[in-house]
Amino acid sequence: MAVYTEVSDDELTAFLAGYDIGQLLSCKGIAEGVENSNFLLHTGAGFFILTLYEKRVDENDLPFFLGLMDHLSERGLSCPRPVHDNNGLALGTLAGRRAAIVTFLDGLSVKRPEAKHCAMVGESLARLHQAGDNFHIKRRNALSVDAWPGLFHSAEARADGVLPGLAVAVAQELSHLEQNWPKGLPSGVIHADLFPDNVFFLSGQLSGVIDFYFACNDFLAYDLAVCLNAWCFELDASFNITKGMAMLSGYQRVRKLEAAEVEALPVLARGAALRFMLTRLVDWLNVPEGALVKPKDPMEYVKKMRFHQHVTGARDYGLLQ
Amino acid sequence: MAVYTEVSDDELTAFLAGYDIGQLLSCKGIAEGVENSNFLLHTGAGFFILTLYEKRVDENDLPFFLGLMDHLSERGLSCPRPVHDNNGLALGTLAGRRAAIVTFLDGLSVKRPEAKHCAMVGESLARLHQAGDNFHIKRRNALSVDAWPGLFHSAEARADGVLPGLAVAVAQELSHLEQNWPKGLPSGVIHADLFPDNVFFLSGQLSGVIDFYFACNDFLAYDLAVCLNAWCFELDASFNITKGMAMLSGYQRVRKLEAAEVEALPVLARGAALRFMLTRLVDWLNVPEGALVKPKDPMEYVKKMRFHQHVTGARDYGLLQ
Repeated sequence: MAVYTEVSDDELTAFLAGYDIGQLLSCKGIAEGVENSNFLLHTGAGFFILTLYEKRVDENDLPFFLGLMDHLSERGLSCPRPVHDNNGLALGTLAGRRAAIVTFLDGLSVKRPEAKHCAMVGESLARLHQAGDNFHIKRRNALSVDAWPGLFHSAEARADGVLPGLAVAVAQELSHLEQNWPKGLPSGVIHADLFPDNVFFLSGQLSGVIDFYFACNDFLAYDLAVCLNAWCFELDASFNITKGMAMLSGYQRVRKLEAAEVEALPVLARGAALRFMLTRLVDWLNVPEGALVKPKDPMEYVKKMRFHQHVTGARDYGLLQ
Repeated sequence: MAVYTEVSDDELTAFLAGYDIGQLLSCKGIAEGVENSNFLLHTGAGFFILTLYEKRVDENDLPFFLGLMDHLSERGLSCPRPVHDNNGLALGTLAGRRAAIVTFLDGLSVKRPEAKHCAMVGESLARLHQAGDNFHIKRRNALSVDAWPGLFHSAEARADGVLPGLAVAVAQELSHLEQNWPKGLPSGVIHADLFPDNVFFLSGQLSGVIDFYFACNDFLAYDLAVCLNAWCFELDASFNITKGMAMLSGYQRVRKLEAAEVEALPVLARGAALRFMLTRLVDWLNVPEGALVKPKDPMEYVKKMRFHQHVTGARDYGLLQ
């Protein structure tokens, strides 16, 4: 839940005067997102989401994120669309923060995904990869294999307090991944954080994708590896191959994986598990005093990491060939 | 901010099947209220607020609160209106909590009230008192003069840690109030918590009143005393008599105060200041581990209490006679 910055009605009214979305009728802070402050606006033109970007988001990345949402929605992907102000700008300033207004997207996220949801997510992910193909701004993945040692070192000394032996296990995993990380796979815009929270469904259909604030350029198959981790494990951290199969088939109905991507899938999945384990571990060990956000348990991803270590090929994720 | 209970989509969909408000399109936790969990619902029939009542609210009081909102809105007061289910009930059960759906009310609360807002609040408060006149359910004020000693005793030992000398000052104030608390003033339904957060404005007009979860039967003039405390002080805890005058005149345009109410206003204002000081003090001293709610500073109301101690008559609040 997240409202880090309070906005006065005067500031908000002045800000909205620069947009052609009618009179402000209501503004409610919403308990969503952990990086930014989010408000649901009701104006004469309908409902919108107002986001104030907090310190954890690099201001220089905002044109990429907002431009990408414009680009993807123009290409038919259902995602929040930035509202441009009277000068044509999607990015403004409010209450000392960079701020943007995007369209409100109906839909509900599923708490316990089933195989049918995994299939739709796989399909939409492939469509996102295709739609992002010719986006003109680039953003490197700031949380890829080269960033993991730094994350680990900031948590290393206290890692064994979370789980005895974790520091050594992570060091070994890092070394394995650095030596085996693939090169030259098909690359493009990836969502990089397509967790169930960020996918909406309505009437049994996938209705939209939100939260592009980790999107970047990287291997397309790495995005699929993130989704396998996020959607296809059960609560007890066991991998559900029926869900994996549904997701991989859904993806390949739209975009066929190349042989090199199939071969790399296990190492990409290990990397994706480590990436989320590490950021959760760092957050877990650094909960600020008086924090309004409950950090997520890194142990979930330690268990997923262990599963991937025993995978022998993409078939173990449900890939049919 | 408040979302204490997570609701699964399945539970919510099953719950909504009992109401005639169309298909669920969206549900977002909102950062509002400190006692309950609140969600903004979008359905085929529009926008609504779903409230899950948490432990701090006594279940036996819910028919009073919901019935009152029905009663007041039937009488033309703009406030959230409970949506009744297909069995005619305003109160249901969801995720193990008592739950209700009310209409969504547009409007913005003012962070820094001006005299014009105070005038409108005074007027609306009097209308609320009139509209509540014949409401058939009764609820005693659980936070009136007889409850303050108990609140104080739970905080007494640590009160001087907040402000040296506070325990003695409160004990003296309690004794003064117990001896001088008025009897037999005009009584009826009062809001009892009409702070700026709970009043909406649109296009310069008061558009609605929300949050009836402290409403009860008590002296009508006590409600006005709560509002003088909540609306007419500046940030430095100085009383703004222009605002007081606007509020009292606004109130009396609708309902004329009786002589006994005018005479009692200073002691009622002292009592109202002590009541909010005490609940804030108790909350301040008992912030639960990992609380998502930042408690309000009791010192604000210590200062207001001191102001009221030097008031010699209702004229000091701006009453014109």
